Amino acid sequence: MLKRLIHIDTSLDESLQSQIRNKLVEGILVGSFALGSRLPSSRKLAEQLGVARNTVVLVYQTLQDEGYIISKERSGIYVNEKIHQGWVNDNELHMAYQPKASDNQHRFKGTLQVTNDTACPADWQKYSYPFIDGKFDVSLYPVKEWRDANQQANVTREINQWSQLQGLGDDPMLIEQIRTKVIPRRGIQASSDEILITVGTQQALHLISQLFVDDTVTVAVEEPGYPEVRDLLQYSGANLLYQPVDDNGMQVNEQLDRCDIVYTTPSHQTPTSVTMSMTRRHELLDKAKAQDLLIIEDDFEFESNFLRQPHPALRSLDSGNRVVYISCLSKVLASGIQIGFIVADSGVISELKKLRKMTMRNPPLNNQRAVAYFLSLGYYDAFMLHLHKVFFERWLTLREALNTYLPNCIDTGPIQGGTAYWITGPPQLDGENLREKAAELGILIEPVKRYFAQSKHPENCFRMGITSIPNHRIRDGVSKLADLIHQLTEEHEEKLGNASGKLLNDEALRKCLPGARLECQMVYGVPCTIDLLPDGSMSGHTGGIGSEIDTGHWWIENGMYWRQWKLWSYGEVKGFYVIMDGDQMKWFDQNYSFVRQLDLKGYPATLDQ
Amino acid sequence: MLKRLIHIDTSLDESLQSQIRNKLVEGILVGSFALGSRLPSSRKLAEQLGVARNTVVLVYQTLQDEGYIISKERSGIYVNEKIHQGWVNDNELHMAYQPKASDNQHRFKGTLQVTNDTACPADWQKYSYPFIDGKFDVSLYPVKEWRDANQQANVTREINQWSQLQGLGDDPMLIEQIRTKVIPRRGIQASSDEILITVGTQQALHLISQLFVDDTVTVAVEEPGYPEVRDLLQYSGANLLYQPVDDNGMQVNEQLDRCDIVYTTPSHQTPTSVTMSMTRRHELLDKAKAQDLLIIEDDFEFESNFLRQPHPALRSLDSGNRVVYISCLSKVLASGIQIGFIVADSGVISELKKLRKMTMRNPPLNNQRAVAYFLSLGYYDAFMLHLHKVFFERWLTLREALNTYLPNCIDTGPIQGGTAYWITGPPQLDGENLREKAAELGILIEPVKRYFAQSKHPENCFRMGITSIPNHRIRDGVSKLADLIHQLTEEHEEKLGNASGKLLNDEALRKCLPGARLECQMVYGVPCTIDLLPDGSMSGHTGGIGSEIDTGHWWIENGMYWRQWKLWSYGEVKGFYVIMDGDQMKWFDQNYSFVRQLDLKGYPATLDQ
Repeated sequence: MLKRLIHIDTSLDESLQSQIRNKLVEGILVGSFALGSRLPSSRKLAEQLGVARNTVVLVYQTLQDEGYIISKERSGIYVNEKIHQGWVNDNELHMAYQPKASDNQHRFKGTLQVTNDTACPADWQKYSYPFIDGKFDVSLYPVKEWRDANQQANVTREINQWSQLQGLGDDPMLIEQIRTKVIPRRGIQASSDEILITVGTQQALHLISQLFVDDTVTVAVEEPGYPEVRDLLQYSGANLLYQPVDDNGMQVNEQLDRCDIVYTTPSHQTPTSVTMSMTRRHELLDKAKAQDLLIIEDDFEFESNFLRQPHPALRSLDSGNRVVYISCLSKVLASGIQIGFIVADSGVISELKKLRKMTMRNPPLNNQRAVAYFLSLGYYDAFMLHLHKVFFERWLTLREALNTYLPNCIDTGPIQGGTAYWITGPPQLDGENLREKAAELGILIEPVKRYFAQSKHPENCFRMGITSIPNHRIRDGVSKLADLIHQLTEEHEEKLGNASGKLLNDEALRKCLPGARLECQMVYGVPCTIDLLPDGSMSGHTGGIGSEIDTGHWWIENGMYWRQWKLWSYGEVKGFYVIMDGDQMKWFDQNYSFVRQLDLKGYPATLDQ
Repeated sequence: MLKRLIHIDTSLDESLQSQIRNKLVEGILVGSFALGSRLPSSRKLAEQLGVARNTVVLVYQTLQDEGYIISKERSGIYVNEKIHQGWVNDNELHMAYQPKASDNQHRFKGTLQVTNDTACPADWQKYSYPFIDGKFDVSLYPVKEWRDANQQANVTREINQWSQLQGLGDDPMLIEQIRTKVIPRRGIQASSDEILITVGTQQALHLISQLFVDDTVTVAVEEPGYPEVRDLLQYSGANLLYQPVDDNGMQVNEQLDRCDIVYTTPSHQTPTSVTMSMTRRHELLDKAKAQDLLIIEDDFEFESNFLRQPHPALRSLDSGNRVVYISCLSKVLASGIQIGFIVADSGVISELKKLRKMTMRNPPLNNQRAVAYFLSLGYYDAFMLHLHKVFFERWLTLREALNTYLPNCIDTGPIQGGTAYWITGPPQLDGENLREKAAELGILIEPVKRYFAQSKHPENCFRMGITSIPNHRIRDGVSKLADLIHQLTEEHEEKLGNASGKLLNDEALRKCLPGARLECQMVYGVPCTIDLLPDGSMSGHTGGIGSEIDTGHWWIENGMYWRQWKLWSYGEVKGFYVIMDGDQMKWFDQNYSFVRQLDLKGYPATLDQ
C-alpha cells in the first residue's frame, strides 16, 4: 500500500528525500495515514521503497521537526494526532457543499461600471501571432536574477528588517534604489519622503484619486485614452473632459481652463503610442501654471524610447509643484510582482501614505526588499538594457513588415517608441471583422473601441503590440494579415484592369525610369526617396529620425519593373506592373493587385499620351 | 586603483566571482569606471586581485551577457556606453536637489482622520521585555520553508503560469489551497468562486466597505474595538453605533435593530481577546435574520485558540447568507507577505473583484503562488502547529507570572486564547503613567486609549501581548512590572500595619490552618481551592477549562505561614504574615505588603476575639 502512495520518480529534479517527505505529508493531510496511526520503521519503509535507509531516517527527522509525526521510545513512529489542533470540530464538514445563494445584491451601494477588457482570449499563448500589448513573454522575464534577488531578501537578517516596517512605511532600501537608479532615467530628482511605493500603477492612480478627486472636481483625460483611469475617476465622482490627441500628444487648448486636474501619458500616449513633443510639454506646464491645474503624469513604460533620447518627464520640467508622477519599474517586471511608485511633494506623499495604510497597509514588504536587491545588484539596469534591445528589434521588424506588406494601405503615425502600433487601415476596413477573421488564422490584433469614451471609435483602426510575440514570427504574421486585409477590402482596391492612367510597356518603362527619382511615404509617416540610376543600380533613403539608406539593382523585363534591394523588402526580387496617372506612378503585383503609389519627379509629360 | 575599488572579502559566504561582479557593476553604475572606458584584461585583473584567471574570465562573461561590458576583438574589454540608453539626457541632474515645497494641501478633498498608532517605539527590539502584540518575533518566521516555497514559485514554468493571470483573477492554486486547507479549520466550506485574495485583511475591509457602506448605512462596531476599522468606516461615510463587549463577546441588544451592518471579531475580540460564546453567536445570527443585517466577521487570528477546540466561525453557523468572512493565513506570515482573503457568496465576490481590479488589479501573483506552495507542501500545517505550541507556552507563562506576582491586584478576564491579555489593574492605577515608567525599565506594555471611540477609556487598563517576547523573558518582565505597579499604587495598598483585622501569631496559626480549606480567585477569573492537610502536606486545584492541580508542603515559623508548591509559584519557598478579617484571610509579605486575600472555609469564630 505504501508503495502505491509513495510513488518515486527518479527522473525528476526533486530529491528522493523531498519526494518521500512530500508524499507522506500529503498522505497525512488527506487522511490516507490516519491520525495516531503507526508508520513503518525506517528500515521497513526503506526496503519497500528501495531506497537507502538513511534517506528515510532523514525524512522521518524532518517530519518530526515539523510536527507531522511523533517517535515514541520502544514503540515506533506515529502520525501526530495533534496535527489538526486548533481546527473546529465539525462533523458536518464532509457533507456535500452547496454554495450560498447570491442574494446580497440589494445591499450593494451601486454597481461598478467598468470598461470591458481588451478582447484577448485567455489562451492567447496558443496563437501563432499574438500582436497584443502587455501580455508578456516569459522568455523576457529575468528569472535567474529575480530568483537571486528574491533569495537575498528572504534570509533571517533581511526578514527581520522588513518585517518590522509594517505600518510604518516603505522599505528604505527600495526607496533609495528608486531615488538613485530609476527616476534619474526620467530626469527626476526627489528626496526619500517624496516617493511612495504602491501595488502597481493602478493603486497609485486610486490613491491619487482618493486624495484629489470628488464630485466637485473636473478632470481632463485623453481621448482616445486609458479606460481604467476613466472608470476610476468616474467612480470617484469626477466630471470628465475629453482632450483630443494629435501627433504631438494630448492637445492643450482652452477646454483645459475648465478643469482642475489633467491626466496624461506623455511618454507614449495610451493607446496611440504618440510621444508628447517638448513644445507641447511646455504649453501644458504653462497652462497648468496659468490655471492652477494639477497634472497627473502616468509614465507607465519608459523602456521603449527607441528613436531618440527620451524627453524629460513633465515632473522634471516643472519649475513649480504641479505634477504628480506615477510609474513602475517596467511593464514586464510589474506584471505579477506589482511594484509601482508615486513621486510628489512630501505633503502629498504623507497624506497618500495615510490613505494607503487605511486601505491596505503596505505593499508586501518581501517584494519591496526583493526588488530593492534586484536594483542594487545591477540586475535592473542590465534587464532594462536587454528589454530595450529586444523591444527595439521587434518594433523595427514590425515596422519593416508593415511597410513591406501594407504600403499605401495603412498608416501608423510618426511614433518614436512604445510597445504597440496604432494602425489606421483603409477607410473601408471593418476593424472588428478583421480582428475576428485574423484570430481564425492565429493572428491576434487589438480592437480600439474601449479607448474611446465620448467620440465614436474609427472602425478602420486597430493596434498591434510587440511585448508578447517573438521577433521571428512578426514578418510571417504581418504577411498573412496583409493578405487578409487585401481580401477584405478587395472590392474597394484598384486593380490593374480598372486603374486610371496608362500601363507602361517595356519601351515606355525604358524611356522614363533610367535616372528617375521616385518619392513615396513610409507607413510610419516619413518620406522615402528612390533614385533609379541609368546603370541599373539604385539607391534609397528615408527621412525622419534614424533615417536609413539602402542600395540595390533594377531592370525591365516582360512589361514589368523589377528590383532587388540589399536589405529593404527582405532583399527579395520583386516585379511590378506600372501605371502612370499624371505624375503618379502606381505599382501592381503579379496578381494585378495594387501595391503602392509614388511620385515620379520629372516625369516627361510627352510620354503621357 | 582597481584593488581599492574591488575589495575582496574572503570571509564572506558570497563567492569570489559574485563579489567581483557586484563591485564592477557598482563601479560602472556610480561612474568609477567611465562609460566607454577600457577595463584591464582578465589576466591583468586576476593578477591584481590575486585570484584565478578563470574567475575573472567567468565574471567578464557574465557582465558581457548582462550588457555591462563589450568585448572588441583584438582591442580589449570596454564598459558599454549604452548602459544608460533610454536615460534622459539631463545635465542638470547633478545639481544639488531642493525638495519641492509642499503646497498642494488646498487641493486635498478632506484630510483623513486616523487614530494614532499604538505607542510602540520603532526600536522596540532593543527593549528587554516587549509585551506587545503583533510586532513579530523573527525567530517564529518559517524562513527555510518560505524560501523553499518561494523558489518553487519562481521558476520559468510557474512564472509563465502566474504572469498570465494578471487582471483575470487570483491564482487558482492558492484559492484551492485556501479552500481545502485553511477555511475548513474554521468549519467553513466554500466553492472557488466564493473566495477572493486580498493584500492583507485591511484591504479586505476596505473593499467590503466600498461595496456595502455609504452615508445611508449604519454600522455597529465593538467598543472597545479595532480603531483601523472605525477609521475606514467613517471615511466611507458610515454612521457608527458602538456595541459594548462583555465576557461573552459583543453584546446583542435592541441597539442592533437600528443598524444595517455589524462588524465583529468573534474569535478573539480586539482588543479584549474575549471569545464570543456559542449562545451569543446564535443570538447574533438570529438578530441578523430578524433585522436583515449583514455581518462582517473578522477572524484575523485563529492560531491561538488554546483552552478548547475553537467555536466554528459565524459564517459556518449561518444557515442563510448574512456573513462576509475575512481572514489571513496567520498574523506571523501575513506581516510582510500580506496575503488575506474574503469568503462570501459568488455575487459579492464578483463585485469585490471588480472593485479590487479598479483599485489595484491583483495582489502580487508571485506571492500568491509562493503561498500556494507553502500550503501545498504542508509547511503551513506544520507552521500552525508550531505557532500554536509556542504561543500557548508563552500565553501560559504570562498567565502564571501575572497570577504569581499580581494576585488580588489585577484581572485578565476569563479568556481562552488570543495573543494578548487585557489587564485591569488596581482602581488607582494610572495606566499611561505605568506605561511610561515601565518603558524606562525596558518593559513595553500597550495603552488602551486608542480602542475607545465613544466612551472614556478605563485609566487603569493596559494590554500585554506575547507575539514578540521570548518565553524565558516573560517571568522576569512581569516580576519587574509587578514591583512597579506596587510602587505606583503603594499609598492605596493595605500594609500589615494599617490592615483591618487581627494578625495571627504562631499559636493562632496552628489553631486555624491544619485541615483548613482556602479559596481564592486566579487573576484569570477561575476559582482556586487549597487544602492544608494536618500532616503538613497540601493540595490545590483550580477550576475552569484546563484545570490544574498541584501539591506541596506548608508550615508555621516565626509568626508566619510558609509554603512551597511543587510547580505553582515556581516551586519557591515563600512565607506570609496572616491577618484574619471575619472569614477573610489576608497575606502580607516580608515587606509587610499586601499579597492576596482568601476565604477561609470553616474558620472557627472563637478565634476571632
